[in-house]
Amino acid sequence: MRNSGRANNELRKIEIIPNYLEDSEGSCLISFGKTKVLCAATVENKTPFFLKGTGQGWISAEYSLLPCSTQPRTEREAIKGKQTGRTHEIQRLIGRSLRASTDLTILGERQIKIDCDVIQADGGTRTASVCGACVALGLAVKKLKLRHNPFQHLVAAVSCGKVNGEIVTDLDYSEDSQAEVDANFVMIDTGDLVEVQATGENGVFDVDQLAKMISYAREGAGRIFQMQKNILLR
Amino acid sequence: MRNSGRANNELRKIEIIPNYLEDSEGSCLISFGKTKVLCAATVENKTPFFLKGTGQGWISAEYSLLPCSTQPRTEREAIKGKQTGRTHEIQRLIGRSLRASTDLTILGERQIKIDCDVIQADGGTRTASVCGACVALGLAVKKLKLRHNPFQHLVAAVSCGKVNGEIVTDLDYSEDSQAEVDANFVMIDTGDLVEVQATGENGVFDVDQLAKMISYAREGAGRIFQMQKNILLR
Amino acid sequence: MRNSGRANNELRKIEIIPNYLEDSEGSCLISFGKTKVLCAATVENKTPFFLKGTGQGWISAEYSLLPCSTQPRTEREAIKGKQTGRTHEIQRLIGRSLRASTDLTILGERQIKIDCDVIQADGGTRTASVCGACVALGLAVKKLKLRHNPFQHLVAAVSCGKVNGEIVTDLDYSEDSQAEVDANFVMIDTGDLVEVQATGENGVFDVDQLAKMISYAREGAGRIFQMQKNILLR
Amino acid sequence: MRNSGRANNELRKIEIIPNYLEDSEGSCLISFGKTKVLCAATVENKTPFFLKGTGQGWISAEYSLLPCSTQPRTEREAIKGKQTGRTHEIQRLIGRSLRASTDLTILGERQIKIDCDVIQADGGTRTASVCGACVALGLAVKKLKLRHNPFQHLVAAVSCGKVNGEIVTDLDYSEDSQAEVDANFVMIDTGDLVEVQATGENGVFDVDQLAKMISYAREGAGRIFQMQKNILLR
Amino acid sequence: MRNSGRANNELRKIEIIPNYLEDSEGSCLISFGKTKVLCAATVENKTPFFLKGTGQGWISAEYSLLPCSTQPRTEREAIKGKQTGRTHEIQRLIGRSLRASTDLTILGERQIKIDCDVIQADGGTRTASVCGACVALGLAVKKLKLRHNPFQHLVAAVSCGKVNGEIVTDLDYSEDSQAEVDANFVMIDTGDLVEVQATGENGVFDVDQLAKMISYAREGAGRIFQMQKNILLR
Amino acid sequence: MRNSGRANNELRKIEIIPNYLEDSEGSCLISFGKTKVLCAATVENKTPFFLKGTGQGWISAEYSLLPCSTQPRTEREAIKGKQTGRTHEIQRLIGRSLRASTDLTILGERQIKIDCDVIQADGGTRTASVCGACVALGLAVKKLKLRHNPFQHLVAAVSCGKVNGEIVTDLDYSEDSQAEVDANFVMIDTGDLVEVQATGENGVFDVDQLAKMISYAREGAGRIFQMQKNILLR
Repeated sequence: MRNSGRANNELRKIEIIPNYLEDSEGSCLISFGKTKVLCAATVENKTPFFLKGTGQGWISAEYSLLPCSTQPRTEREAIKGKQTGRTHEIQRLIGRSLRASTDLTILGERQIKIDCDVIQADGGTRTASVCGACVALGLAVKKLKLRHNPFQHLVAAVSCGKVNGEIVTDLDYSEDSQAEVDANFVMIDTGDLVEVQATGENGVFDVDQLAKMISYAREGAGRIFQMQKNILLR
Repeated sequence: MRNSGRANNELRKIEIIPNYLEDSEGSCLISFGKTKVLCAATVENKTPFFLKGTGQGWISAEYSLLPCSTQPRTEREAIKGKQTGRTHEIQRLIGRSLRASTDLTILGERQIKIDCDVIQADGGTRTASVCGACVALGLAVKKLKLRHNPFQHLVAAVSCGKVNGEIVTDLDYSEDSQAEVDANFVMIDTGDLVEVQATGENGVFDVDQLAKMISYAREGAGRIFQMQKNILLR
Repeated sequence: MRNSGRANNELRKIEIIPNYLEDSEGSCLISFGKTKVLCAATVENKTPFFLKGTGQGWISAEYSLLPCSTQPRTEREAIKGKQTGRTHEIQRLIGRSLRASTDLTILGERQIKIDCDVIQADGGTRTASVCGACVALGLAVKKLKLRHNPFQHLVAAVSCGKVNGEIVTDLDYSEDSQAEVDANFVMIDTGDLVEVQATGENGVFDVDQLAKMISYAREGAGRIFQMQKNILLR
Repeated sequence: MRNSGRANNELRKIEIIPNYLEDSEGSCLISFGKTKVLCAATVENKTPFFLKGTGQGWISAEYSLLPCSTQPRTEREAIKGKQTGRTHEIQRLIGRSLRASTDLTILGERQIKIDCDVIQADGGTRTASVCGACVALGLAVKKLKLRHNPFQHLVAAVSCGKVNGEIVTDLDYSEDSQAEVDANFVMIDTGDLVEVQATGENGVFDVDQLAKMISYAREGAGRIFQMQKNILLR
Repeated sequence: MRNSGRANNELRKIEIIPNYLEDSEGSCLISFGKTKVLCAATVENKTPFFLKGTGQGWISAEYSLLPCSTQPRTEREAIKGKQTGRTHEIQRLIGRSLRASTDLTILGERQIKIDCDVIQADGGTRTASVCGACVALGLAVKKLKLRHNPFQHLVAAVSCGKVNGEIVTDLDYSEDSQAEVDANFVMIDTGDLVEVQATGENGVFDVDQLAKMISYAREGAGRIFQMQKNILLR
Repeated sequence: MRNSGRANNELRKIEIIPNYLEDSEGSCLISFGKTKVLCAATVENKTPFFLKGTGQGWISAEYSLLPCSTQPRTEREAIKGKQTGRTHEIQRLIGRSLRASTDLTILGERQIKIDCDVIQADGGTRTASVCGACVALGLAVKKLKLRHNPFQHLVAAVSCGKVNGEIVTDLDYSEDSQAEVDANFVMIDTGDLVEVQATGENGVFDVDQLAKMISYAREGAGRIFQMQKNILLR
């Protein structure tokens, strides 16, 4: 039995407040239980230099923990003078995930940057970031009113893990910190996978366990796609 | 007449949500109109090295704009690898202001750091930060349950300026960006001044104009002290 | 048919020269086709600060591309003043993989750092690094002559991908740069998985394709375990 | 009675050696008692990027303490790799003050940078910097021989403070380090204020005390304007 | 008698493997005894900005120790975030030496960068770097197939020193670390000197001792020129 | 004939103002013609970590160009965030030179740091720095009043060069910037050499030319030793 009383395949309460920032091109505040992430999109009318002249756009992400989002407090990266390896890894993951949602050629020579700033962290900040970033991106693309819609798929991410030998989904911090295996799955609304990251820091896993995690993740993603659709198709 | 319809000596709508972060030692989300700042206190049981052995504590602050708090977006300082001069200036101001509220000898060899993270910026982020940081600090000091109370004064800050030749208070961004003179006043609940910063970037000012600004600031601070008291004396 | 004439499940020619550095505690030069990585272990008799007093050791890795290992040349990170996100991600992966090979409690309060410096890069540098680092680590642990052996498993990594719709293994640079899906699998010599990273930068993948990649990776890892055993059991 | 024997409203001995650097466009060595600052102007024939195309110029300042200007020695910022918050704050203050002296539209698309390097520090380095920078700027603008003179006002800065309950002016280090209130006033030769910065680090102040400080500062500034005039009108 | 059994004027065994990197424009692995340096040239079709429009090219070098090239291990400069003073000094020396080999006007507006990465360090890494860099440069220039040959001289460097009062050449690490005087001589194949660096860290030297070092260095350089010629004139 | 009218072996006018800084442990302002360097010593009562427990002290130097010491202005290293290669090279040279003057074992576990800040640069700043640093060091050591005197030799540095084929000494900037060969010689008052650095950036040199430069340098050093003696033996 999980501490929280949740079933193994049960997500935490998810809430998405769209357009949380009054002047942003697309934003939302997403929460998974106590985890809260503010996601906001910025559109620039030029593509990064490595795509100049290709007619293609780009989508990237930046991620940060507010210092007091964690207990104990996390030191501010602007003071350390550089982003940690963990931050780099997460923002690269979010960026790759979002690019799977969008036809970059239809987007044209634009760059969309999604900021994911964690207000409160209780596990699953990277998966919440992907889910919220998809909403912020969708809202921003909508405002562009392009002739053809470059936003082609919803993207959702769900974390799973092995805790005390059990496969569970959407781990909170207390579960995450004692998990044998920690995994994140990103998928699009066709059910296809975009990214699988499974890591056994304190243990290993076999193919069956991987399959069970994928199945839980799919189930959770289904719920999230529904919430995203409700916001973006309004 | 101000764009917002406010009288020259009228503050924007202020709201303070205490304990906004569930696990922080003291926090609040403060808003002045559209400006929103998340303030959170962290207590460490050691004083900085320059005070070691003096029996005295320290209070300092860190300030940051979330990238999407402004339009256009502000580049993330963690990516630039350093904090700007403006950030340094503001966090030094907040720290000095808070130290005026507290008897550092009664506090003892502890350090309290207040994070002020701007969620949405529409002018007056530094004064909102001081007002909110005072609440976060007060809540955190209360939880320490020290024998003698080191928290001795409420601290509030109010911005004033000269816009089109008129002295006005609590400028929003549209006023701030065209002000001839820009000023910030920090005071404690006895009415005494802790900090005066008045700058004529696009103009100068005389002693009478300074006096009028101080009088507006005092009036505004009175309202803020009341709100702080309602929270901290509960 | 692959450009190189290899079968879909066929690795490139692998070579491991153990003790390549004359004075290092454990080193090897590993090559997968034209990809060459120099791996070397350094043992320090203290554990990192976050493990002090736990009786437990630590294993971490550093990774770098020599500037001329790639075409076009890669800028030197020491001149840019920081490591890229890609470097951070890879060295974190190598570290996690190696920690799965070793009982850190038996290792005791020691830290082993493995340097993986890429001499020539032709795809698969991170998987080659894991395979070579395992050899460098094994050689270094052997020299420690501890009463109980902390080195409990061989670790190997194999890359797979989807190229022109086909699942293939051990991609060289020409394949990697046009792959729809790019994946890396790390496993120990029991066949259990330690890490799965599968990314669809230019496409998506389904569960069956993931299963096929895992099966190719296992087959390849088997060959690598044999080579590692030949060196470490000598 | 002040340690130095000075009256409360008495400045230290001030000396200004114009054109101290033989090849600089405008320079001086200014001293207030033992405090010595080398000020030098550099004119660039382009305005910063944020003013390009506006026809307007810009004036900014850089400030630094030579390591041995203080006792104990101050660490070199070039070695720490960044400027401190205090440095940022001071150079922003100097820049703002100088811009009040000059009509930036008449200056045209030029940038003038004033370096203020403190050779010996005994309190009041920022106010001495403003006074000396005004001379360096005036000399440099003169050499430009523009049709209309953009240099419209002399600028001077004077420090005041509350020491042992007394309002005094031009504090040396021994006074500054024990002051209850520390203030800096910048004004132009019409008597109008450009900048007021008053800080109660170890105490507070009321409106009357502020007024007294302003009056002392004005008196001191009068003397400095005279010295600047003697040099610039020669 | 030297530890190694070498005569005072005797170099270590030198080996040069040309074209060590398969895809580089010009490369070699050079060894002086246990010291091994990988040298590789990269040609860019533009000159640095300070030569733009002069018709002249440039040659520069970068130098680095692989962390495990030394015992004890050297910290990675990319992690420290900057290159050490020693690294700067060596890469400037290599660059200056190489520019003496080449007519930069005939080279035209091209920049050639030579990377010298030390695989194993046992003294004399900077002199080995110069000798190997000359080969890498020569190979790269040859491939350019310019109408007139800009590569006009071979360049070689030899280290000498005073160890236990004796003048010796090509010091290994055990000699270098106890030398009273440490010197490096760079010359071209006419016998003329390009660079003399002689340093008495633990002692001084007179003109006769300097002359003896120069004579040993010339003798050694003669042997190296022969090896370079064999490779470059093939 | 030299532009300045000086004979080939003639130094510029040298002036040394000892104790230029009123509160420093040892300082001087040294000028060679228009080149002016402020040298100041700081004594710390602990040796650097790599000498802890050896009973031995250390002497090191820091060097910097004030931005306006050169024409055109040099960018401030504190703003670039790092010291240039040239700065590193020069401060290492000064440090090595000074260590030749002092018996570090007699000095005991102390560290003396010499700051050399160039106020005005007209060629020869590194040689002027060595000469002035020797005076600052000598004054500071004297104040330590140790039982045995660790300061055993005067140290002087003289620059020489080949300009239009002529060997000349103490080059000013106009000569330096067109020199074929540029050399710096450091020696102690016995006439022995501590450091020889000769570089042919735009040409080469033979052994006879090197000998002539050494002889000029010795002659110049003799004059400087006399001036240093006059100050330090007072």
